[in-house]
Amino acid sequence: MFIAKVIGNVVSTQKDPKFHGMKLLLIQPYISKEGKLQVSGSSVVAVDSVGAGVGECVLFTQGSSARLTPATKDAPVDTVIVGIVDAVEVEGKMLEKP
Amino acid sequence: MFIAKVIGNVVSTQKDPKFHGMKLLLIQPYISKEGKLQVSGSSVVAVDSVGAGVGECVLFTQGSSARLTPATKDAPVDTVIVGIVDAVEVEGKMLEKP
Amino acid sequence: MFIAKVIGNVVSTQKDPKFHGMKLLLIQPYISKEGKLQVSGSSVVAVDSVGAGVGECVLFTQGSSARLTPATKDAPVDTVIVGIVDAVEVEGKMLEKP
Amino acid sequence: MFIAKVIGNVVSTQKDPKFHGMKLLLIQPYISKEGKLQVSGSSVVAVDSVGAGVGECVLFTQGSSARLTPATKDAPVDTVIVGIVDAVEVEGKMLEKP
Amino acid sequence: MFIAKVIGNVVSTQKDPKFHGMKLLLIQPYISKEGKLQVSGSSVVAVDSVGAGVGECVLFTQGSSARLTPATKDAPVDTVIVGIVDAVEVEGKMLEKP
Repeated sequence: MFIAKVIGNVVSTQKDPKFHGMKLLLIQPYISKEGKLQVSGSSVVAVDSVGAGVGECVLFTQGSSARLTPATKDAPVDTVIVGIVDAVEVEGKMLEKP
Repeated sequence: MFIAKVIGNVVSTQKDPKFHGMKLLLIQPYISKEGKLQVSGSSVVAVDSVGAGVGECVLFTQGSSARLTPATKDAPVDTVIVGIVDAVEVEGKMLEKP
Repeated sequence: MFIAKVIGNVVSTQKDPKFHGMKLLLIQPYISKEGKLQVSGSSVVAVDSVGAGVGECVLFTQGSSARLTPATKDAPVDTVIVGIVDAVEVEGKMLEKP
Repeated sequence: MFIAKVIGNVVSTQKDPKFHGMKLLLIQPYISKEGKLQVSGSSVVAVDSVGAGVGECVLFTQGSSARLTPATKDAPVDTVIVGIVDAVEVEGKMLEKP
Repeated sequence: MFIAKVIGNVVSTQKDPKFHGMKLLLIQPYISKEGKLQVSGSSVVAVDSVGAGVGECVLFTQGSSARLTPATKDAPVDTVIVGIVDAVEVEGKMLEKP
């Protein structure tokens, strides 16, 4: 899993039927670097399964495991938000969230 | 999932039988950067499952989940277009599509 | 899926029993760039399932979906050639093959 | 699998029910380079299945295989720690751990 | 699949029960470049399923397919060596092994 910040919403009307009712969020992965969470890699579209919103720091899962939440069961989904991150502690210190 | 622009078509005559009747599109992934959708990464070949066409902005799924649309069931396919993207909203603003 | 050129053969005698009789080809992925197909990324070893040969432009599938051709069923294979590419059309023009 | 150092903890209260009771660790992948284990790539969040702690050198598994430990069965998890690494030997020498 | 050279051994005592009896090798991926096999990417830990040893050139499989050898069945393993490479031929010439 990776940590990411929710940065936006994605709107799609014409889509696979299993996507109906799903909340699609744009997320930006973060890594731990020099005591901070810093941007890393490309923005990704994830289905929300935990009530996450824009601005929050989240944990997301990719691949076939992304279909194992109640929100994504049997759907053609490869990325899902599985948790809202309260804190990341590295070497005894809480990382600042960007 | 990632966002991409459909940039072309791929034609193949000699192919796995399960590919017959599939529409193969060349897509170019985009990421959110400085208020715009910008090119990122390599062009990918995806099966269309939603009636997408060249020039449209789409959402695509990779891996085993790509086999979970009616168009790709049980086929040796690892990338499928699952939606046409109407809008991407970041920090309250709609991103421009390239 | 990605497009690649078949650039060589790989010979292995001591191997998993399910690999017996498989043709192993070395392929070089290509992407669409400035009206041409251009080299991108690392060379990959793929099982041939469509009668491809050195010099041909092919379509290949990765991951668990690579096991869904008759040639690769239930084998420990993660990459398979699923089609021979006749043409790639971008913005109304056929891309040159390298 | 890859080798990594456990560098921290991730705390999440609002999460998928299958994550309850799981220990989430932040790990930093390492590669073998010039006789040492050196940092490579992005920090990743992994579920611990072997009693690993901060500072230890571990082996981790990704993808669907990450669900095959007793700690992660059927959970939407894509990364799990499967072993604590005692030693890495390259060309007859033990690599120094950073 | 990719080609790699076996460069070392990984020792782990405290590990998932399904890893007992497995031989863990450190491998370094190679690609074809300018008539030679050259280093590319990060070193990876693979389970041996074909009797490979340090210094040999091998073929390895990743992802869920890595569980389809007799040595790795149902184990939380994502990388397995499936063959020993005798030769790689590109444009009619055998590539030199590094």
